[in-house]
Amino acid sequence: MRILIAGVDGYLGWSLAMHLAAHGHQVAGADNGFRRRWVEEMGSWSAIPIASMADRLEAFEERFDSALSWWEGDLREYSFVERIFTEFEPEAIVHLGECPSAPYSMLDAEHAVFVQTNNIVSTFNLLAAQRAVRPDSHLVKLGTMGEYGTPNIDIPEGFFEVEYRGRRDRLPFPRQANSWYHWSKVHGSNNIMFACKVWDLRATDVMQGVVFGTRIEAMNDDQRLLTRLDFDQAFGTAINRYCCQAVIGHPLTPYGKGHQRRGFIPLRDSMQCLTLALENPPEEGEYRVFNQFEEVYDLTDLAFMVRQVASDVGLDVEVHNVENPRMESEDHYFNPDHQHLLDLGFVPTLGVKEEMRIMVEDLLRHRSRIEDRRQVLLPDVRWDGRKETVDYLKEPAPATGRSAG
Amino acid sequence: MRILIAGVDGYLGWSLAMHLAAHGHQVAGADNGFRRRWVEEMGSWSAIPIASMADRLEAFEERFDSALSWWEGDLREYSFVERIFTEFEPEAIVHLGECPSAPYSMLDAEHAVFVQTNNIVSTFNLLAAQRAVRPDSHLVKLGTMGEYGTPNIDIPEGFFEVEYRGRRDRLPFPRQANSWYHWSKVHGSNNIMFACKVWDLRATDVMQGVVFGTRIEAMNDDQRLLTRLDFDQAFGTAINRYCCQAVIGHPLTPYGKGHQRRGFIPLRDSMQCLTLALENPPEEGEYRVFNQFEEVYDLTDLAFMVRQVASDVGLDVEVHNVENPRMESEDHYFNPDHQHLLDLGFVPTLGVKEEMRIMVEDLLRHRSRIEDRRQVLLPDVRWDGRKETVDYLKEPAPATGRSAG
Repeated sequence: MRILIAGVDGYLGWSLAMHLAAHGHQVAGADNGFRRRWVEEMGSWSAIPIASMADRLEAFEERFDSALSWWEGDLREYSFVERIFTEFEPEAIVHLGECPSAPYSMLDAEHAVFVQTNNIVSTFNLLAAQRAVRPDSHLVKLGTMGEYGTPNIDIPEGFFEVEYRGRRDRLPFPRQANSWYHWSKVHGSNNIMFACKVWDLRATDVMQGVVFGTRIEAMNDDQRLLTRLDFDQAFGTAINRYCCQAVIGHPLTPYGKGHQRRGFIPLRDSMQCLTLALENPPEEGEYRVFNQFEEVYDLTDLAFMVRQVASDVGLDVEVHNVENPRMESEDHYFNPDHQHLLDLGFVPTLGVKEEMRIMVEDLLRHRSRIEDRRQVLLPDVRWDGRKETVDYLKEPAPATGRSAG
Repeated sequence: MRILIAGVDGYLGWSLAMHLAAHGHQVAGADNGFRRRWVEEMGSWSAIPIASMADRLEAFEERFDSALSWWEGDLREYSFVERIFTEFEPEAIVHLGECPSAPYSMLDAEHAVFVQTNNIVSTFNLLAAQRAVRPDSHLVKLGTMGEYGTPNIDIPEGFFEVEYRGRRDRLPFPRQANSWYHWSKVHGSNNIMFACKVWDLRATDVMQGVVFGTRIEAMNDDQRLLTRLDFDQAFGTAINRYCCQAVIGHPLTPYGKGHQRRGFIPLRDSMQCLTLALENPPEEGEYRVFNQFEEVYDLTDLAFMVRQVASDVGLDVEVHNVENPRMESEDHYFNPDHQHLLDLGFVPTLGVKEEMRIMVEDLLRHRSRIEDRRQVLLPDVRWDGRKETVDYLKEPAPATGRSAG
């Protein structure tokens, strides 16, 4: 299948390019290097050193005996997007080309507007190009479980049957996002749902859980093929950041009470799921939503798991909660469905602790890079607008033992 | 009260400036003349001739013995918005400064992106300025009943108590908009809801029905104080367009089967409701939603009412349905709540037919202007992307008699 990856230079994008090539697909990728610049702006870098795009492309071709069709440019420019569609003729598009950071969008008004307009316009341009050039193609769009927020009822996959005052309808499940970034994803989901209806396009909207992991099979051991791994407050996510903290002996730092519950999925299984979505496209005019995660965990329980895994290789770290820079529920109901991908054949590859073990081993080789940017491990972007590094809390939270794994 | 009207040069904005001044409020207004240019771009003009902004300002000061504080500029520029807040120090802001047209947003990809980014960024900038400069001020934001679409269940005012799999929560009511414009309003509503939560702002989000009418009391008979009245496919709305058609003997043209049901409100009562919202602000941190309309009508029934009113003054017109350029349900359930404004004391002023009578009389004086732009009375912007003037249908729909009035 000819597949275009928008945002191919990112954490997921670069991994997916290799995963798809290893599965015999023909891959094109577009990017303008935004992610590298954003992480730099946050004063950080990838814990795992990554190659330049030129070197990535060379290594890719050596590894897969097939070139990645490379497009450098900005997805906010419609003419750029249309040109890719006309020349590459994608059968499917995976949209990973958005700014993926809640804290980055909460920095100030300028960043909020950038994140929302960048994400809305890039998504819209892909839809418009699909319609104009490749109306049969399939858009796989990366959303986030964060679109739903934490309602006090079960979370279905996108839609639910609701009874209200004695009448029934099937409606989009209400979204309650919690940052300008997360709302940009909701805006995008709404636009895609409408595009499928009015233009008869087909799309899969992936409400993805928090991704973690340093590697997938297809990377082999070529250093030029490794994907990035961020640990700053804006682009590093929970388990990835815990593992980076662990290898330099920094306390693991859940936010606030630390009993936020989220869905998680390892990088390798995210690749598996996106590929399942691509290889099983929806019907013409169909807009479908997949909740893409493996298991729900409590963020403090995860910290204790990372502590255990680190201890097994002789690293002694403590779990110490910090002030929550965000405004969010810290102890709440959370029970989302995630059946659609299982129905397509998704089988989780490794347990969460095995994955953490691999991560800690991989990251140990790069501890000096993490040590060098140690100051980015504690957040200072607060939802209330203050820019002030969080303090440690007096009473760290205990693990609940409720989480599986 | 010091009230800033964003979009003061528009149909509602100019009327509201006068209505508020007549009620003793101190008014500032911002605009950049977009509405005049958009209507020109559609090949049309206002049926009722309107004065230049300079003449409007002069007439306003003569009429109310108090100047309107005038700000010319683009709400997408944050520094412009912040400057108004700093210098005028508004206690309340009414945001009427968005592009309000579904067909305009469906013209092509460029217009869709313009409408969405213009509306999102202007709304966001007002929120950011509130937070930075006037955190106690009250934002009254014009949304639309069209945000809800036409679900097969009752429509509450913004939020509903829902039971799902044995658990309960109060959630935002799902939105199912039907154009890029209507979705831009949903995106704006979502952003405002979040701003109230995270920044403790206060806002009233007005889901307004379709407005109609040529006048409000405060205009007196000064020609320079009249507000615009559009009849083109993009900026003219149902009753306004029917009345313009009637005065030149053009058939009244419901779209498709013509049994779309919508909430309607006369211009003078829209002013009354917005003023009630302003004079009864929500609490700090409160985001409240008002469904602002007077009565639900079937679009074909309305056409027959206009025919009756026209016939009373000797104008003989037929009702003749045309192809529906939109993709929408043409016969559906529609039962939205509208209690909140009644609870604040809203009392409808005139019946729909009395209002139509005044409109037809007012418009008769300008029939040559409508005749002159007769070609804009039939739409050619279709939701399926074709740009082709609609045809008359063979079988016009009969009135249902279900609508009140």
